[in-house]
Amino acid sequence: MKIAVLPGDGIGPEVTAEAVAVLESLALPGLTLFSGDVGGAAYHRHGVPLPDETLEVARVADAILFGAVGDPACDALERHLRPEQAILGLRKHLGLFANLRPARVFAGLEHLSPLRTDIAGGLDLLIVRELTGDVYFGAKGQRVTDDGEREGWDAMSYAEHEVRRIAHVAFRAAAVSGQPLTSVDKANVLETSQLWRDVVIEVAAEYPGVTLDHMYVDNAAMQVVSHPDRFGVVLTGNLFGDILSDLASAAVGSIGLLPSASLGERQTAHGTYGLYEPIHGSAPDIAGQGKANPMATILSAAMMLRHSFGREDDAVRIEAAVARTLADGILGGDLGGSHGTAAIGAAVRERL
Amino acid sequence: MKIAVLPGDGIGPEVTAEAVAVLESLALPGLTLFSGDVGGAAYHRHGVPLPDETLEVARVADAILFGAVGDPACDALERHLRPEQAILGLRKHLGLFANLRPARVFAGLEHLSPLRTDIAGGLDLLIVRELTGDVYFGAKGQRVTDDGEREGWDAMSYAEHEVRRIAHVAFRAAAVSGQPLTSVDKANVLETSQLWRDVVIEVAAEYPGVTLDHMYVDNAAMQVVSHPDRFGVVLTGNLFGDILSDLASAAVGSIGLLPSASLGERQTAHGTYGLYEPIHGSAPDIAGQGKANPMATILSAAMMLRHSFGREDDAVRIEAAVARTLADGILGGDLGGSHGTAAIGAAVRERL
Ligand SMILES: CC(C)[C@H](C(=O)O)[C@@H](O)C(=O)O
Ligand SMILES: CC(C)[C@H](C(=O)O)[C@@H](O)C(=O)O
Repeated sequence: MKIAVLPGDGIGPEVTAEAVAVLESLALPGLTLFSGDVGGAAYHRHGVPLPDETLEVARVADAILFGAVGDPACDALERHLRPEQAILGLRKHLGLFANLRPARVFAGLEHLSPLRTDIAGGLDLLIVRELTGDVYFGAKGQRVTDDGEREGWDAMSYAEHEVRRIAHVAFRAAAVSGQPLTSVDKANVLETSQLWRDVVIEVAAEYPGVTLDHMYVDNAAMQVVSHPDRFGVVLTGNLFGDILSDLASAAVGSIGLLPSASLGERQTAHGTYGLYEPIHGSAPDIAGQGKANPMATILSAAMMLRHSFGREDDAVRIEAAVARTLADGILGGDLGGSHGTAAIGAAVRERL
Repeated sequence: MKIAVLPGDGIGPEVTAEAVAVLESLALPGLTLFSGDVGGAAYHRHGVPLPDETLEVARVADAILFGAVGDPACDALERHLRPEQAILGLRKHLGLFANLRPARVFAGLEHLSPLRTDIAGGLDLLIVRELTGDVYFGAKGQRVTDDGEREGWDAMSYAEHEVRRIAHVAFRAAAVSGQPLTSVDKANVLETSQLWRDVVIEVAAEYPGVTLDHMYVDNAAMQVVSHPDRFGVVLTGNLFGDILSDLASAAVGSIGLLPSASLGERQTAHGTYGLYEPIHGSAPDIAGQGKANPMATILSAAMMLRHSFGREDDAVRIEAAVARTLADGILGGDLGGSHGTAAIGAAVRERL
């Protein structure tokens, strides 16, 4: 079990340390940890946010545990040097096309949601976001038009195989969980979305047991806050997925608890190659103070055991330990509690 | 005062009729009403959702009162024939580049918001959405790649003058209301957004009294539901504006109350040429039953008097009458009440 640990910036090192401690306490067979610099931390040491060495470390591993990137000291840099570009580079270079983001309101934590309690209780969905295509990675630039004015442009596109493979990920998830699947696009305006919709309908034929519907992205944003219980699995492109998954996280209200997985095509001995990270950022304002809640990163490690190492039992053990820690009132400042990073990590390990 | 009334589909004719009755009861000087077919209604009669005659009627008027378009009977048509294309065509042909969507929780109606009451109370913002550029109106199509697979593509772009003119609309609104301005983009990924941000910063220099900040669209979606009180005026592009304005409407919880204005560059005798419409759709499920709430369309007519005819007093009169009608408990089914379209329209007119 080769895991590349890329702690990154801000609270990244603190939260990944606790997740690593959880993995180590499980006595996993042949667990080997590598580490690498990424984000602002990498920029300061190597002059780039994603050094070749880091990419190499990530490549030889079976899975990547990623902390967070983002460093105010890098704000003035040109875009390609900024910490956030590291995560885009990892996704693209490693072919991590499938982003899975579960969002649900934890029992007993409904009061943290900005939604009314009766509505928040219905929020339990999985967003499956395409991660290596769309307007993110198309041609782009600035130019001067014939009229002599500046123009910024980005090419949005999806090819059939890109839609097909992410659709399969979402349909499989829906088939396994027995939940309906909602594909989100803007097919009333975009040709990219029209192709998306056509291909999703083709793939649906292979999953007769899954209920599929299509929703425009503007309507989907409305439904996430007004009727979240309508959603089971949500399949969408890179740009809409960016917005909707953060929206769903905000609706949960406890962003310090939300994990994510970004899977590639490569198969490892017992699963799928992938990168796992909390959905929160580097939170520079509380970095180095031992205050960050490591639960999202610990839950990301659980997703890693499930998807990259085929260790469902260990994944469930971690998830149950986190749930018990929460139920016992051991809460970080983000959840209204007063426990620090190390105390929460230790509490989860005790409950494994 | 020449007003083109385009009722459209579903509940469109019912709600526009009440707004027209309100306008007529104000005894406005030289009020002249034209009408035209649009949407599915136009398709069934003329074979296209936006006939030339309708465009002509819209052009000779000073302002357009628009109902709603959308007709399930047209679902199987090719995209360019579908009712929704009529509104895109009107925006583009008439140069309606500035969409203003106020979203606030009405006093006494906090319980309709899906947000917790303490959070909903802070929701009072104006979205200024660019409406004739972005990925909506760029080149687009489907093609077969060299590998023989289908691909859908859309070109996203903004030119300097497009950003500049919508930025001025937003800065002026912020200057008048004394509220801060938040410009929303995705400048960490898109060159279109980078240009957007650069131009907004240039325009900001002309409005030293306005506080400006920039927010990525994913973060903005989060903040709308978790900290809506952070927003005053929100300036954004066509695609992000589509999503964020519907999100803000959902957060208000009473979509039957929300108006909108879409303004062009053309100046009329006393204001700016524009199209006014409720933000709700054609609601085919309740069409023809006299159940639709006409308040959003009546409030859109108030925006028309303000922006296209310089009649602030009349606009305020209508808005106050709607507020009194709500306070008196005369509510449509969408607000938990039992009053029908005609009863609500009459109640508003009585309170003018
Ligand atoms: C940092 C940024 C480029 C990134 C994205 O837009 O994908 C982030 O928002 C995310 O969702 O992981
Ligand atoms: C009908 C559709 C094309 C339109 C849009 O996306 O602009 C609608 O959602 C709106 O916001 O007016």
